[in-house]
Amino acid sequence: MLFNKALILGIGLIGSSLARNLKEKELVDTLVVYDKNKENLAKAENLGFADIYTDSIKEGASDADLIIFATPVCAFGDLAKEVAQYVKKGAVISDVGSVKQYSLQEIEKYLNKDMGVIVVGGHPVAGTEKSGPENGFTSLFKGRWCILTPDDNSTPEAIKKLTKMWESCDMKVDTMETAHHDKVMAAVSHLPQLIAYSIVGTVADLEGYEHKEIIKYSAGGFRDFTRIAGSDPTMWRDIFLTNKQTVLELIQRFIEDLVALERNIRWDEGDKMFDLFKRTQKIRKDVIEAKQDQPEHEKRIMEELKKQQA
Amino acid sequence: MLFNKALILGIGLIGSSLARNLKEKELVDTLVVYDKNKENLAKAENLGFADIYTDSIKEGASDADLIIFATPVCAFGDLAKEVAQYVKKGAVISDVGSVKQYSLQEIEKYLNKDMGVIVVGGHPVAGTEKSGPENGFTSLFKGRWCILTPDDNSTPEAIKKLTKMWESCDMKVDTMETAHHDKVMAAVSHLPQLIAYSIVGTVADLEGYEHKEIIKYSAGGFRDFTRIAGSDPTMWRDIFLTNKQTVLELIQRFIEDLVALERNIRWDEGDKMFDLFKRTQKIRKDVIEAKQDQPEHEKRIMEELKKQQA
Repeated sequence: MLFNKALILGIGLIGSSLARNLKEKELVDTLVVYDKNKENLAKAENLGFADIYTDSIKEGASDADLIIFATPVCAFGDLAKEVAQYVKKGAVISDVGSVKQYSLQEIEKYLNKDMGVIVVGGHPVAGTEKSGPENGFTSLFKGRWCILTPDDNSTPEAIKKLTKMWESCDMKVDTMETAHHDKVMAAVSHLPQLIAYSIVGTVADLEGYEHKEIIKYSAGGFRDFTRIAGSDPTMWRDIFLTNKQTVLELIQRFIEDLVALERNIRWDEGDKMFDLFKRTQKIRKDVIEAKQDQPEHEKRIMEELKKQQA
Repeated sequence: MLFNKALILGIGLIGSSLARNLKEKELVDTLVVYDKNKENLAKAENLGFADIYTDSIKEGASDADLIIFATPVCAFGDLAKEVAQYVKKGAVISDVGSVKQYSLQEIEKYLNKDMGVIVVGGHPVAGTEKSGPENGFTSLFKGRWCILTPDDNSTPEAIKKLTKMWESCDMKVDTMETAHHDKVMAAVSHLPQLIAYSIVGTVADLEGYEHKEIIKYSAGGFRDFTRIAGSDPTMWRDIFLTNKQTVLELIQRFIEDLVALERNIRWDEGDKMFDLFKRTQKIRKDVIEAKQDQPEHEKRIMEELKKQQA
């Protein structure tokens, strides 16, 4: 056993998938899952992926030697404040937040080495556009990267244990400085997600178009954006608000480049467009070569979800 | 047999997939495929999906009772001019172009009812990000929509024959006015594709990032855009240049909406963002309910491609 008593705060897609791993792979003795939403708790209990299901921080945090924050990031501060009342000395605190500077700042206001606890930020880079405990599954993390962002409140032992935990979930583990993490994620995740939300809104709102027609012909490309824009609204709202400066900078860069492309179209600069499209084709090849887009993996995810929901 | 001698001009993804259908389903007696690229012709001959492989318009067009334009749209005009020298009276002319006003204007400059031929525009809304004859396959069209855009150069008999042809490819067939087609496609296809190219360019060009790192963590969302931006550069350049006015208008609309979202982030207007994200989630549901995103279909496509390439 890696931990005696573990508490997962929030049982959405990531929290519930982690819970499944901790039990199935026997990484913890007693697994407590907390959610303030009673409907989610009932679903979780029905699915049976933990030992204790509670909406009491006191019950969950007391005696826990591992506490993982897995709610939307804007809830971290209030939760940390409450956890601090019951946490035991030496407990390892981590999270799965997509924005690390904000998450750790909120957690470490109340939970830090002066309190006698150890904090190691974490971000398993995995997910689907589905949310809620019923959509989690064990192999969600398989083959993906988990980024740990240790700081002054971390210890080598805790980093080692968390590395082992995520590796047991079949993840590859990397460490990164928190600010650098947020910068990289703004580029590969936050900006693309924002653009997807934005374009789905634009196309849906166009006057002079029938909604039915847009949906009917969505296989022309639009539907790929609707898949991305079907993701959890609360989680993403929080990410954009808490990684604000970097996201705002990247939006400006994106608009600059889009306007250049607009100009290429207006002035018939086909060659310039062609050069860009050739470059993006090459980038696609790099992604495939780095095994970061594997139809096999997606297929397996779909099959697992189907099995589970049958 | 629906046609005695059919000529397909251009054997990319769509042309070669149509060729496979015409032969396998015995819709034509003699199938000629034309390509100016000798390497493509050799590949096609090797794959064996036609009867005659040629780079001579004269050989292909003479006596053909069906001629389908399936090259990038900017090549249509020159090809039509040459076809007009050899085409026989009563021949049915169609195409698979993604932009219908421009395509038909180019074709009908040289091929029209005054010439004694019949023209019916067509657009099978199907595809993958792959290009070239080796990436075509029979079931590419299955369950997708084909849009016919008849005009003054069309006849009911020719529309009926082409409807039958595309239905034999397992497509659902719809008819639309050419200008309306281009407007709808700008929204569901051209704008999304342009945005994908643009964002992949932006992220790849960001200074202060390592290319390797961007690729490594691309599963965070970026890779979905690289898939789309891996599509055929020539085809898309031509689409943007030939559906220019509508695409330019939509880019402006998109930027307007993106800037509003940027402002929401800057001024912490989480509620407004949340409302948009809830709406886009609902649109995703509409797409799934309209069966326009079917994991089953994508899976089948991947399996067929694998089988074929084995």
